[in-house]
Amino acid sequence: MKFATEYLWFETRKQREYINITDKVAQIVQQSGVQEGMVLVSAMHITAAVYVNDAESGLIQDIDEWLEHLAPFRQDYRHHRTGETNGDAHLKSLIMHHEVIVPITEGRLDLGPWQQVYYAEFDGQRRKRLIIKVMGE
Amino acid sequence: MKFATEYLWFETRKQREYINITDKVAQIVQQSGVQEGMVLVSAMHITAAVYVNDAESGLIQDIDEWLEHLAPFRQDYRHHRTGETNGDAHLKSLIMHHEVIVPITEGRLDLGPWQQVYYAEFDGQRRKRLIIKVMGE
Amino acid sequence: MKFATEYLWFETRKQREYINITDKVAQIVQQSGVQEGMVLVSAMHITAAVYVNDAESGLIQDIDEWLEHLAPFRQDYRHHRTGETNGDAHLKSLIMHHEVIVPITEGRLDLGPWQQVYYAEFDGQRRKRLIIKVMGE
Repeated sequence: MKFATEYLWFETRKQREYINITDKVAQIVQQSGVQEGMVLVSAMHITAAVYVNDAESGLIQDIDEWLEHLAPFRQDYRHHRTGETNGDAHLKSLIMHHEVIVPITEGRLDLGPWQQVYYAEFDGQRRKRLIIKVMGE
Repeated sequence: MKFATEYLWFETRKQREYINITDKVAQIVQQSGVQEGMVLVSAMHITAAVYVNDAESGLIQDIDEWLEHLAPFRQDYRHHRTGETNGDAHLKSLIMHHEVIVPITEGRLDLGPWQQVYYAEFDGQRRKRLIIKVMGE
Repeated sequence: MKFATEYLWFETRKQREYINITDKVAQIVQQSGVQEGMVLVSAMHITAAVYVNDAESGLIQDIDEWLEHLAPFRQDYRHHRTGETNGDAHLKSLIMHHEVIVPITEGRLDLGPWQQVYYAEFDGQRRKRLIIKVMGE
């Protein structure tokens, strides 16, 4: 059985960004030599997400506006009594989820035609980390 | 270590449908011969979801109405400038998530008494695919 | 290849509770002897969730209020025609999701500095079960 573990670092210029990491995940899977298995892609922070969806810039703006509608920035989150200002980023992360598992078949990410793996940053402009763990044979 | 990979195809009659696929997943696990492990059940499209919840028809209607409330059909999604009309289906998919992992113990899906695996279609009336990957011993 | 399967039981005093189970998951991973792999932590009921986020009490209250806003208690859910009164708990569970996968590296949960594993109960005051399945080498 084979395992490979890699960490990616991000430091986005904007507070919220959506970064297509499909090629990076595919490359790590290829380097692992795993032919059959799964790869876990998981944010290591609680104000970021990893999701699978479309690489269409209009849709990404729709997602961003929709998340701001469902989990808006507000001054009065209780979490802000700690000095933080990112309560909304925690809630956005919870809707979108912090991780995905992508199946590996015949050495490749077994994704549908439009499926892309995204890192979603909701509290950027600081260094944030993500783990990619490949597991299989 | 054993792996099994199967693809299910759906072409729903309605635009939105909720299909109980628990028996199909269980059958694929049984055929794989895996006694201990996990099975990934993952939509291969970005306007569908896979989730675990109750097989109660009233609840499924509640879920459908609630998703339409949180992620409504609208004409003015930016995504629609591409010619698409399914922006809401992407957002519904993101709330519900496109995949689950079900544990396998003693050769069976290790689900709680009311847990059923559902495929949720949000942009149907076309052929859509789902991957089931069993991994274990 | 090694597997370990444990079940945790909860019977919360309140209807909704958020319980940090990180230490318990870490202990089960340690006892399994797995050095590289993944651990699945999955609620076995359809009115509970498992998620990874911050152990900050203000934020947990924010999450609870936010979930009540997005998936409120209502008398008129169709699900209540069955005699149930917990329609909102199903919807809260769907937003938050019933499971997470945590990577295991060098025998430890490979979590970021603020990531904690939580069991979220949305329909408590009764016995509920959760499965923890460790898989790796």
